Amino acid sequence: MKFQLLDKVTEQTDERVVALKQVSLAEEYLADHFPTFPILPGVMMLEVMVQAARLMLEGRSEDRLVLGEVKALKYGSMVRPGEALEVEVTLSKQLDDGGFQCRGTGRVRRSDEEQADGETAVSGRFTMRPIRTA
Amino acid sequence: MKFQLLDKVTEQTDERVVALKQVSLAEEYLADHFPTFPILPGVMMLEVMVQAARLMLEGRSEDRLVLGEVKALKYGSMVRPGEALEVEVTLSKQLDDGGFQCRGTGRVRRSDEEQADGETAVSGRFTMRPIRTA
Amino acid sequence: MKFQLLDKVTEQTDERVVALKQVSLAEEYLADHFPTFPILPGVMMLEVMVQAARLMLEGRSEDRLVLGEVKALKYGSMVRPGEALEVEVTLSKQLDDGGFQCRGTGRVRRSDEEQADGETAVSGRFTMRPIRTA
Amino acid sequence: MKFQLLDKVTEQTDERVVALKQVSLAEEYLADHFPTFPILPGVMMLEVMVQAARLMLEGRSEDRLVLGEVKALKYGSMVRPGEALEVEVTLSKQLDDGGFQCRGTGRVRRSDEEQADGETAVSGRFTMRPIRTA
Amino acid sequence: MKFQLLDKVTEQTDERVVALKQVSLAEEYLADHFPTFPILPGVMMLEVMVQAARLMLEGRSEDRLVLGEVKALKYGSMVRPGEALEVEVTLSKQLDDGGFQCRGTGRVRRSDEEQADGETAVSGRFTMRPIRTA
Amino acid sequence: MKFQLLDKVTEQTDERVVALKQVSLAEEYLADHFPTFPILPGVMMLEVMVQAARLMLEGRSEDRLVLGEVKALKYGSMVRPGEALEVEVTLSKQLDDGGFQCRGTGRVRRSDEEQADGETAVSGRFTMRPIRTA
Repeated sequence: MKFQLLDKVTEQTDERVVALKQVSLAEEYLADHFPTFPILPGVMMLEVMVQAARLMLEGRSEDRLVLGEVKALKYGSMVRPGEALEVEVTLSKQLDDGGFQCRGTGRVRRSDEEQADGETAVSGRFTMRPIRTA
Repeated sequence: MKFQLLDKVTEQTDERVVALKQVSLAEEYLADHFPTFPILPGVMMLEVMVQAARLMLEGRSEDRLVLGEVKALKYGSMVRPGEALEVEVTLSKQLDDGGFQCRGTGRVRRSDEEQADGETAVSGRFTMRPIRTA
Repeated sequence: MKFQLLDKVTEQTDERVVALKQVSLAEEYLADHFPTFPILPGVMMLEVMVQAARLMLEGRSEDRLVLGEVKALKYGSMVRPGEALEVEVTLSKQLDDGGFQCRGTGRVRRSDEEQADGETAVSGRFTMRPIRTA
Repeated sequence: MKFQLLDKVTEQTDERVVALKQVSLAEEYLADHFPTFPILPGVMMLEVMVQAARLMLEGRSEDRLVLGEVKALKYGSMVRPGEALEVEVTLSKQLDDGGFQCRGTGRVRRSDEEQADGETAVSGRFTMRPIRTA
Repeated sequence: MKFQLLDKVTEQTDERVVALKQVSLAEEYLADHFPTFPILPGVMMLEVMVQAARLMLEGRSEDRLVLGEVKALKYGSMVRPGEALEVEVTLSKQLDDGGFQCRGTGRVRRSDEEQADGETAVSGRFTMRPIRTA
Repeated sequence: MKFQLLDKVTEQTDERVVALKQVSLAEEYLADHFPTFPILPGVMMLEVMVQAARLMLEGRSEDRLVLGEVKALKYGSMVRPGEALEVEVTLSKQLDDGGFQCRGTGRVRRSDEEQADGETAVSGRFTMRPIRTA
């Protein structure tokens, strides 16, 4: 697999980004999670938000940014093959140590019209920090 | 990659099937097709229809079915990461040699509401034939 | 897998190309097509011809070329692991819209001498068209 | 890649598990995270703890368990190829809704003796919940 | 990739086996060995002989057999994408410790007729031993 | 998988290199070798030594170097997921034809302290030769 989990960016400013991750059975990790019940793993939902945050912060930091903290992250609905996770990440605060506090929400999106969509799949706060190389 | 291109089946009878293939950058072949302009390859669109036809015909044939002929297949809009291909395959005729004539159409589906969708990406006729092992 | 299906090009002019695709069990998609009966999928045979056509047309077009139409494509013998598909693609006509009409044939090649080879696995016509980005 | 991130389990009771995840350049996702600076992604550290928790809870729940919440998760040292992440997960509380509160810590382990090891790479609390299928 | 390197077995007794490994650019490891000059790695040639030996010895041993020793193995011609490695492995001696001494030779096979083929790519002796689990 | 089997280089001169290969279940080939008993294949141990030799010889040769001969290679202990193979490769002699004679040893390394480690997994001699392109 490619570890590139933003399939489409629909909005982007330096304080907010909205992006979409499609879930497809051709992605190998779904064969293991789980063999008979494939769903997007919770940590992959978090990674979609992390990659969206990294994109949003490109103009604010020249450092490579990685996860620093995760706070009060809650998971709700599951995202299945044929569905998508749409995440919205906003910048809450720039921290003194060069990090960034972010807030993220992910919703289930379905392209067929027969089902309601928009249930919350994940939401919470996290910080992105510059890599400490020492 | 897994060669399983039906992410979701939304309708299925033994004469008609509607199914969805999500296109995601995590799928490896998009890195080669093309490195700077990833799109679902035309042959993969055809394979989505083939796999949908195989599903539709499961109750009619105990043989393993593979592509026999492709006729008048036309490609239109491209399908990009973050979008999906929704195919509809119908059975046209059962052939004397154990094969099946099918008709298929694929449309682009987008889960965000800001863009119109539904453009035809592919349409045409094809036959599925039982594997000749001799 | 890498989506690079031309293993060897044995002839190449701007009107004709002959190329070889080896079929090997190490390629992942064969594990799914089919688990107990691995064969080169029909759509992959078509893709070998598409990639050969793209190579042949490199000198004639600066656009990226993708499948436009497939006409009267017929499948014959299957190609198994340990065998190869040798395709020959020729240019039939340059179209007014910037596309190219091609004709392609694929034959089974075996490197051991004990079996006859050369059966037709696929043959038909197809067009390559420049990507319409609008 | 295989989404199996427990390479070795060194201790296991139904209240505590200690397990090891080796980090190897042969794992594909490191090529994207990041091309010139490969490190174990933060979400993968979390997934190691999730998989360890699932193992620990096998005897207590017949449901499939997934991430429910993540609280106060902090990342510290990075884990590079040639190093390992050793996680310790303990059960804090069984919840009324069938879920489980867990605490996890991950430390960097190095097999060469020249460097000190044991720095904390990740620590925090999380809950595992049974899959809600409604 | 699948680590299944015997694409076709053309002869098999319990003292001799002849098998073929196709070399295809779709196999991922060729992208790294080497990016601009893909060839079948020498250790993969050896593995083809090991897998052929394992097949030959299936009827003689119920143990899982792995490489025990490699003696006087010499590499000659390289095997490129579009070519195949045909190995012949023969049993030299059954050893007292449950192992088997084998002799193996690999030749380059090409399916197009324009080039001579049959150059030796690898030859040597090796032993297969039962797994010692203590 | 990536065919990059040196996860960490701990010593390097132009006559000696020490490097580490982590063994992780996320690496796909372990699923086939063997499904119920994953171990680092013997040929992969050899490849770790080959890649270490290539690194050691970078300053001495501008040619691409591949395996030329393998002599008296013996396998001992197995290396399992959660363990590592530490190889030491030394240069024995520069050959007249541009090749290099090397000696290599690989030992099992474990990052948990409860088990003794350091058993020999592989040792032997091999030559690296410049690629003959004729």
